[in-house]
Amino acid sequence: MFELKERDGLARICELTTTHGKVTTPVLLPVVNPNFLTISPKEMKDRFGVKMLITNSYIIRGTESLREKAISSGVHEMLGFDGPVMTDSGTFQDHVYGDVKVDHKEIVRFQASIGSDIGTILDVFSEPDFTREKAEKAAEETIRRGTESLAEKGKMMLAGPVQGGVYPDIRERCARDMSALDFDVHPIGGVVPLLENYRYADLAEVIIASKKGLNPSRPVHLFGAGHPMVFPLAVLLGCDMFDSASYAKYARQDRMMYSTGTRFLKDLHDLACHCPMCSRNSVDGLLQKPHEERTRLIAEHNLHVCLREINTVKNSIHEGSIWELVEMRARAHPALLEALKVLEKHKKFLERFEPASRRGAFFYCGPESYERPTVMRYQERYFSRYRKPDAKVLVGFEEAQKPYSKQYSKEIASITEKVDASFVVASFFGPVPMELDEYYPTAQSVIPAALDAEVRRKMNSVMERHAHQHGYSLALMWEGEETLRFLEDMVSGGPRRRDPDMQRVHAVLDMQFGRGAGDVLDGKKIELVKSERTGKIRNVSIDGVHAFSMRAGDGRFTLKLHGGRLLLGVLEQPGMRVVVEDEPAEFASKGNNVFAKFVRECDPDIRPGDDVMVVNTKGELAAVGRALMNREEMLAFKRGIAVRVKDSSD
Amino acid sequence: MFELKERDGLARICELTTTHGKVTTPVLLPVVNPNFLTISPKEMKDRFGVKMLITNSYIIRGTESLREKAISSGVHEMLGFDGPVMTDSGTFQDHVYGDVKVDHKEIVRFQASIGSDIGTILDVFSEPDFTREKAEKAAEETIRRGTESLAEKGKMMLAGPVQGGVYPDIRERCARDMSALDFDVHPIGGVVPLLENYRYADLAEVIIASKKGLNPSRPVHLFGAGHPMVFPLAVLLGCDMFDSASYAKYARQDRMMYSTGTRFLKDLHDLACHCPMCSRNSVDGLLQKPHEERTRLIAEHNLHVCLREINTVKNSIHEGSIWELVEMRARAHPALLEALKVLEKHKKFLERFEPASRRGAFFYCGPESYERPTVMRYQERYFSRYRKPDAKVLVGFEEAQKPYSKQYSKEIASITEKVDASFVVASFFGPVPMELDEYYPTAQSVIPAALDAEVRRKMNSVMERHAHQHGYSLALMWEGEETLRFLEDMVSGGPRRRDPDMQRVHAVLDMQFGRGAGDVLDGKKIELVKSERTGKIRNVSIDGVHAFSMRAGDGRFTLKLHGGRLLLGVLEQPGMRVVVEDEPAEFASKGNNVFAKFVRECDPDIRPGDDVMVVNTKGELAAVGRALMNREEMLAFKRGIAVRVKDSSD
Repeated sequence: MFELKERDGLARICELTTTHGKVTTPVLLPVVNPNFLTISPKEMKDRFGVKMLITNSYIIRGTESLREKAISSGVHEMLGFDGPVMTDSGTFQDHVYGDVKVDHKEIVRFQASIGSDIGTILDVFSEPDFTREKAEKAAEETIRRGTESLAEKGKMMLAGPVQGGVYPDIRERCARDMSALDFDVHPIGGVVPLLENYRYADLAEVIIASKKGLNPSRPVHLFGAGHPMVFPLAVLLGCDMFDSASYAKYARQDRMMYSTGTRFLKDLHDLACHCPMCSRNSVDGLLQKPHEERTRLIAEHNLHVCLREINTVKNSIHEGSIWELVEMRARAHPALLEALKVLEKHKKFLERFEPASRRGAFFYCGPESYERPTVMRYQERYFSRYRKPDAKVLVGFEEAQKPYSKQYSKEIASITEKVDASFVVASFFGPVPMELDEYYPTAQSVIPAALDAEVRRKMNSVMERHAHQHGYSLALMWEGEETLRFLEDMVSGGPRRRDPDMQRVHAVLDMQFGRGAGDVLDGKKIELVKSERTGKIRNVSIDGVHAFSMRAGDGRFTLKLHGGRLLLGVLEQPGMRVVVEDEPAEFASKGNNVFAKFVRECDPDIRPGDDVMVVNTKGELAAVGRALMNREEMLAFKRGIAVRVKDSSD
Repeated sequence: MFELKERDGLARICELTTTHGKVTTPVLLPVVNPNFLTISPKEMKDRFGVKMLITNSYIIRGTESLREKAISSGVHEMLGFDGPVMTDSGTFQDHVYGDVKVDHKEIVRFQASIGSDIGTILDVFSEPDFTREKAEKAAEETIRRGTESLAEKGKMMLAGPVQGGVYPDIRERCARDMSALDFDVHPIGGVVPLLENYRYADLAEVIIASKKGLNPSRPVHLFGAGHPMVFPLAVLLGCDMFDSASYAKYARQDRMMYSTGTRFLKDLHDLACHCPMCSRNSVDGLLQKPHEERTRLIAEHNLHVCLREINTVKNSIHEGSIWELVEMRARAHPALLEALKVLEKHKKFLERFEPASRRGAFFYCGPESYERPTVMRYQERYFSRYRKPDAKVLVGFEEAQKPYSKQYSKEIASITEKVDASFVVASFFGPVPMELDEYYPTAQSVIPAALDAEVRRKMNSVMERHAHQHGYSLALMWEGEETLRFLEDMVSGGPRRRDPDMQRVHAVLDMQFGRGAGDVLDGKKIELVKSERTGKIRNVSIDGVHAFSMRAGDGRFTLKLHGGRLLLGVLEQPGMRVVVEDEPAEFASKGNNVFAKFVRECDPDIRPGDDVMVVNTKGELAAVGRALMNREEMLAFKRGIAVRVKDSSD
């Protein structure tokens, strides 16, 4: 029971339903050691707003007093916590102490018997220093135990971890096999040693490999990740749940957690924090307190900071700025920068989940920003979808204030009076023809004037590819009035007026829906409604019927039903179509949203936020709307909306 | 009355003494508009811990009820605030409304009459769009009024702003001229339009130019800078005071300030903040409140966040991590990254204030990190101070785990058995010979394995310069066993054992104190005490007397008196000497610290944190100790310690 509510790429806000209530993810589950309560579960709920926690069934089972209480009254009453409780199984204890003796089926039965909301199988902890063979064995044994454990879970939700050490292929395979089983949650296990040794690059590889194999409709729990430094990165890569024993462990060593790293209390001059604990205390005051009290107070701070960072991450998902947050936070430790480099390798995978556009602007944060999937997508679509006008001359401009067409309006006018030319800006994102200068993300970006050398080099190579691919008879950079005189001398044939608005409509249709989409304009009567205030295109009517509306925010089209119908005529199967079973299609045609569970097929090129056509199994148009998921998500999720319907036939 | 307490480069923690008490800088002065109290001064003190505030004498003077109250009971009683109060003069009002009619001498007299702790002259606001001529005029008129105003200040401290628009030379000249006058504080004026338009690169140029001209012993106030986004950068460049009206102004537009930028309340999903206001409220709750109450609450949040960022900055000065903080925070807006690029141009100036070493490690945060003054200094000193051993062969190694000599101990041993070679690592900082592998910052750094292309290119060019400058007969990179065989074939003469410890002592002496310092070892009996646990050099005795102690933290020497005496013999004037008047030198020879006001001269190559020799006017050694300032600071400051004496003759 897991429903997608909002998202920014793989990062997502979801609702997880358990027997003890609903929880919004990303969520941090504080670890409660029932033998040693630094902060009581009741306080966690009342004073910290903790919604869900995790405790260890192996410890409960091994401690007589706890076991009896848990069996007789349930784990919730034992802990004094009425929200959802997840239980771990002893795998981590086996990793640390190596002497866990419990049957894997029995520990699942035990978890069910004490009323755990989400139990965990006794998986095999695959250490980072395992050989391939050992890691493979750990994964296989985990899958075997998983299969057997499912029979024991009763009504309890069950977590089936992904193992496989630091071997991406083993992780991915294990993830795929575990996904084939009927688990409710997938922890990624065996990562604590990576976290402890700042091996964030390896951590990123492990998460990505696991996500590639996992069913996207299930929550992913990064087992043992409890430092706020890693939350943004892990969420960006699609982790939904975290658990933290660190808040208390670090406190015992007088270590204060911050989203930017960890500091020993004694090294601080000022607490420089507003959490309720820090508001009432000072560095000196804390240092003078007895160890136990100090531990307790630092644990409070650590927990506050962890929970707040989760909220900051959620804000960034809502805002569409998770990349910016991750790139900023990566400055907390060079090892996080190394992890960012890993992401470059997996751009193709990440791009599949990348939203069509974002509410906020693209902020450049460093050379890594060039490697975001959004940049790659713009270039790929430009080269595969955009069709250049048949002008013979290409005039290039330098990066400038946006929108470019306004910035360079004088130059464009003078050239257009004399020759038939096409115009492009050598931008950060690649070549931006004037007619795409409002299309996301070209205008919706803040890029510093002085770019890093690495980025400039990459930009140049993209521009070279551009000049190469389009066979202009003459291509040159604008260098002032001289360019104009040169053009007059060189180019015969005289001026040819093109309608920049029609060029824009054509180019955006191709870029947004696929090469060929612009053909819907051919031979039709086109009318444009423009904003009186801004002069921007608002609505496009084709043969008298409203077909598309251009959004001011991202320069892309919202489909009207008529537009969808026309696109069906020019875009080959499966282009921009979501195929829905006939009854729900009928339902959609009456204006109702399309739920994921009714989706039968979907164009693999559809991205979250794309405007799409909803068709029935016969390919007949039922409605148009906004996709909230990509293909693999639509086919996996059993809950939630796949397409928010905007216009429908009835 | 301004005393330096701690520092990290130009960033510094100082104590400012006023009639109404002492204040620690960096400090934020909330702006209080006495006609419109969003938060009362009493609350600011009691609930926010505000130590000092600023109000506007022009507004007080122009409002009859306020004027009478202020004249009869003083500005402190009028505001209900018993801490220091600074007053502004109407210059900003003239910038905004352009109709300020008041005599510049009269407004200073008025400020003195109402008991302001620090008054401000009526300077001329130089707009960023001013021509050179206009900016020059504004600066000249400011200086003229400043000269006349000083006669009117009475006992009040007086602030003399620096003007000059965006012209660095005019700023620097104005700063120098204002510094020649008897002002107590120097605001940098005319920067609000730069702040409002995110022109942070221009802001950085303006601050640096002003700092170059200003007397380093006076506090610098960045007039009108009240957003936490700019505090770290401004403090890094040597600003000590800030004032914020923004906390209230932004609140009126429902804008929440964060250290990472500004957000409209309505765009937030969660407040994601622990300040006392946010702890008690939610986004929805705030949106439902009446405008006035909401403004008040958001102003509280904004003020909390501004004050906390000042504390975070202070922590980073204590910790020696101000560069890391600035580079991290620069990700809040691409315009801050542009400002970082400006700093590269002024490395030579910044280096003069850069500490000799730091408590914490050098963290790589991006390509900008290569441009920190510390990197430049290492390279400059390496090329100008380090003397290579007379080996004929140079073997280079790749960057590796630190310390390098441990990491490559096996390779070094095999080569040393066969040929007379010298060893160097091609590191991020430049060439690091094995004997300098513990010298700050080579070992005290965390650099990611995958470096940005730009940084790699710069590193290569430094290594080329290295191979060029030192005339090895053979230089090659270590490529495993083959290198060894190759060396055996090529190099005749056989092995020659060098004592790596003696090489280290020699190299560190040269690097730390100047080329030639290592000569103190020549022909002497040298004994080393090494740590039993780590094997590292602890003490160096020369002819039976303890001369130097090597610090484990930064691999540099602490001087003993004997070491200082020997260095005097080999280092030419003014090398590593602080010349003190005879009486204070006598005092220092008894173990007392040297105060800045007694310093007569100082080696311009001395940096904060350097171990130096204190000599009297006859050049006789009185003591050795740690310099806390560079030359220009020692000569400027009238309060505070210039050299902390560690060992002395008596």
